[in-house]
Amino acid sequence: MSNPFFKNNGPLNLRDILKELNLKINQNNENIKIVDIKDLQNSKLDEITFFHSLKYKSVANNTKASYCITTEKLKNELPESCKPIIVDNVLVSTSIITSKFYPDSVNDDFDDTVEEISNTKFNDIVKFGKNVLIGQNVSIGQNCLIGHNSIIEKNVSIGDNCSIGSNTIVRNSFIKNNVKILDNCIIGKHGFGFFPTQNKNLRYPHMGVVIIEKNCEIGCGTTIDRGSMSNTIIGSNTFLDNQIHIAHNVKIGENSIIAGQVGIAGSSVIGNNVKIGGQAGISGHLKIGDNVEIAGGSGVIKDIPNNSRVMGYPAKNIRKFLKDNI
Amino acid sequence: MSNPFFKNNGPLNLRDILKELNLKINQNNENIKIVDIKDLQNSKLDEITFFHSLKYKSVANNTKASYCITTEKLKNELPESCKPIIVDNVLVSTSIITSKFYPDSVNDDFDDTVEEISNTKFNDIVKFGKNVLIGQNVSIGQNCLIGHNSIIEKNVSIGDNCSIGSNTIVRNSFIKNNVKILDNCIIGKHGFGFFPTQNKNLRYPHMGVVIIEKNCEIGCGTTIDRGSMSNTIIGSNTFLDNQIHIAHNVKIGENSIIAGQVGIAGSSVIGNNVKIGGQAGISGHLKIGDNVEIAGGSGVIKDIPNNSRVMGYPAKNIRKFLKDNI
Amino acid sequence: MSNPFFKNNGPLNLRDILKELNLKINQNNENIKIVDIKDLQNSKLDEITFFHSLKYKSVANNTKASYCITTEKLKNELPESCKPIIVDNVLVSTSIITSKFYPDSVNDDFDDTVEEISNTKFNDIVKFGKNVLIGQNVSIGQNCLIGHNSIIEKNVSIGDNCSIGSNTIVRNSFIKNNVKILDNCIIGKHGFGFFPTQNKNLRYPHMGVVIIEKNCEIGCGTTIDRGSMSNTIIGSNTFLDNQIHIAHNVKIGENSIIAGQVGIAGSSVIGNNVKIGGQAGISGHLKIGDNVEIAGGSGVIKDIPNNSRVMGYPAKNIRKFLKDNI
Repeated sequence: MSNPFFKNNGPLNLRDILKELNLKINQNNENIKIVDIKDLQNSKLDEITFFHSLKYKSVANNTKASYCITTEKLKNELPESCKPIIVDNVLVSTSIITSKFYPDSVNDDFDDTVEEISNTKFNDIVKFGKNVLIGQNVSIGQNCLIGHNSIIEKNVSIGDNCSIGSNTIVRNSFIKNNVKILDNCIIGKHGFGFFPTQNKNLRYPHMGVVIIEKNCEIGCGTTIDRGSMSNTIIGSNTFLDNQIHIAHNVKIGENSIIAGQVGIAGSSVIGNNVKIGGQAGISGHLKIGDNVEIAGGSGVIKDIPNNSRVMGYPAKNIRKFLKDNI
Repeated sequence: MSNPFFKNNGPLNLRDILKELNLKINQNNENIKIVDIKDLQNSKLDEITFFHSLKYKSVANNTKASYCITTEKLKNELPESCKPIIVDNVLVSTSIITSKFYPDSVNDDFDDTVEEISNTKFNDIVKFGKNVLIGQNVSIGQNCLIGHNSIIEKNVSIGDNCSIGSNTIVRNSFIKNNVKILDNCIIGKHGFGFFPTQNKNLRYPHMGVVIIEKNCEIGCGTTIDRGSMSNTIIGSNTFLDNQIHIAHNVKIGENSIIAGQVGIAGSSVIGNNVKIGGQAGISGHLKIGDNVEIAGGSGVIKDIPNNSRVMGYPAKNIRKFLKDNI
Repeated sequence: MSNPFFKNNGPLNLRDILKELNLKINQNNENIKIVDIKDLQNSKLDEITFFHSLKYKSVANNTKASYCITTEKLKNELPESCKPIIVDNVLVSTSIITSKFYPDSVNDDFDDTVEEISNTKFNDIVKFGKNVLIGQNVSIGQNCLIGHNSIIEKNVSIGDNCSIGSNTIVRNSFIKNNVKILDNCIIGKHGFGFFPTQNKNLRYPHMGVVIIEKNCEIGCGTTIDRGSMSNTIIGSNTFLDNQIHIAHNVKIGENSIIAGQVGIAGSSVIGNNVKIGGQAGISGHLKIGDNVEIAGGSGVIKDIPNNSRVMGYPAKNIRKFLKDNI
């Protein structure tokens, strides 16, 4: 699925990129043009990528990128076709350069392209409440409802038979068929990702989107942040209760059930048929298997294999937890 | 109190009910009319009820209903006047039939009967902000305030001296005198109740309402879901802080104090003079006695007797918890 | 910084003050005028103060107030220039009298001074969305954005280069330069402070404000309550994620990072460079030092010294917690 939300500002001159990173410019490279920035796997000729950890060594060995932001220590893992750009902090430098290519991905300023829905082509297609605002290039399917004061920002796509509640904002998102998003939700804002620095934190770009697959329901007051380099995904027929927070890059499988006030931190991956009780929290970068049950109030801080039932903080086997604690 | 929110679509033909459940229809019953669906206790002649657990045996023995959705195993508990309708899953079948009688109780689509308050009879009675929307048949008492962008949906009743904040939505609710509901609340949406099935969960009907008794205060961003077959009730002079979630069918007593970010799961009953600290969670279907104190952050997973002080997860006697953990 | 939000209704007659407290009035004092109510430290001649705990003995010894609400037991700590007004419950009586001086500080009714921003002087200065409302005497700096349906209530001051999201309400607050407040936030409502009494709780006044220092970011759905007698402060370059609740009088230092769904109870003081993981909770009236790290999901119930890393509920040294629990 192509991403219509963040326009590529490229090509950029390599000279400008080096200048932005306070690196030396020599006459050999000053007029070279770089067309895009991508990860090691997806980048191609005339594009720039980044490489910050030996974990990604094998992908680095085969990258097709022409340039790579990396360190002195890692540069030898790159193929000859890929020229290293040596920096102190790869992620900070990547963040700076990504922001140059995709300036819109850093901010979350309100969409100023919106119009009253009654002035758009959706006037006859959608059943809508008062004060509904629609951004440019929005697409909405058959038989949809949008409640009062809700805002569908530019480029968002909504499938057939969807019901959006009142006071809800959807941006940078693909909403599939038969999805219900209740009142007061914020779907698709940037994640809580930045490099802490004294006096002025550096936000990193969020070029990912939110994808809500078919037959999902999203409860009131829930926030789902869009991804940074990948997407945030809610699998089909997964139901979320009220006041849930889903952070950037999280992927949730199908047929899962998540009760009220749960929080899932960035980049965690949740399987299919997972049940999560109210107020449970899941740390970032974890993998929760299929058919897992997590008791309400639990705090999960490590991966959970398929078919497990866990409880407690840190969450462990539910029988062990109850035996130890009652 | 009669419930004006969900119109009974009955009488329905018994034949159509059986067809909906994929049951055999015979010529004896095809023209019989069923006027309503109720629980075992409240149902009457020419109505249908349901019976799914031996817990309710004594009520089942005396039901006045003419028909009962039940199982082969339970059917003999019914009186002769009540004819069993045998199904595999009583609750799923009941949900399907209830949705036929009360189709509006399944969805939470926005209220399309609303008008700008300045176009209603409340223009001279209520002090209101900009963009306030009022549904049909709303009732509002003396000396009330309603903030900007708030929506009072159809049939809601609000007492005297109430203050509703801004960006708040009230539906399917009875709000008594001297109640304050602050900004960004959603009061009266359906609960998080459904039967999980692969690919397309089956929502169960929520025909209950929210009742907020006199002198209550509800903090910002709080959600209170309406009941399914019973009501969700907040007792008089009970104060709720910000970002609380009260699930369907919960009943809270009088003079209770509930701090920020607390969550109370479905059908739990909380006593009078109860104090609940911030971020505490209470599982579903529990009974919390009078004068109970629950420390902030606790997770309550069993009934708590009157006059107890508990802490921890699972919550236990506070002295024992502190002795074990500090 | 002077506080423009709550108008002093004084001077009040001492006689009326005594009557309000059901105290005896004698002819010596009936015509005396009291100009203001303040704490022991800040009150001056012809003002009234309050003194309820020996903790404040040394300040009481030197108060400049002419009158002091206190108890029989404490009255001898006051200087001769300060006449005691003896009551049973100092805080309740102080609350009653403060409400007489500052009636607006008790309620949080919507601001009825607001106008559409396009009808104000900000029409040419601010970039704004649809349905933005601005109260009287608001001040907004250069280069600011305000999203759809947001409300900036009377007397609020916003610095330069700020971005306010959509559906957000700001009241009783000073917002400094380069601050981002995302969607659906409520900044500056009164705290959850009141004296519980049967049938009708007594709210105490909240005359404090919210101060958000420069370069902060506040996530979606976050609530920050204003202070009662002091202010609620978010230090510069501190970032808050979504769905956080900051209670009244809390002070957070600089360069701190607070993840989603965290709750901080009233009057706690958080240091600089503090990191708090998602869903952690901090009890009221605590002191969290500089450079502290609190793991997600922790429940902090006592002071934490500088440079500590804690985890668990109750939160303790993170290594000890992990050793005991894994």
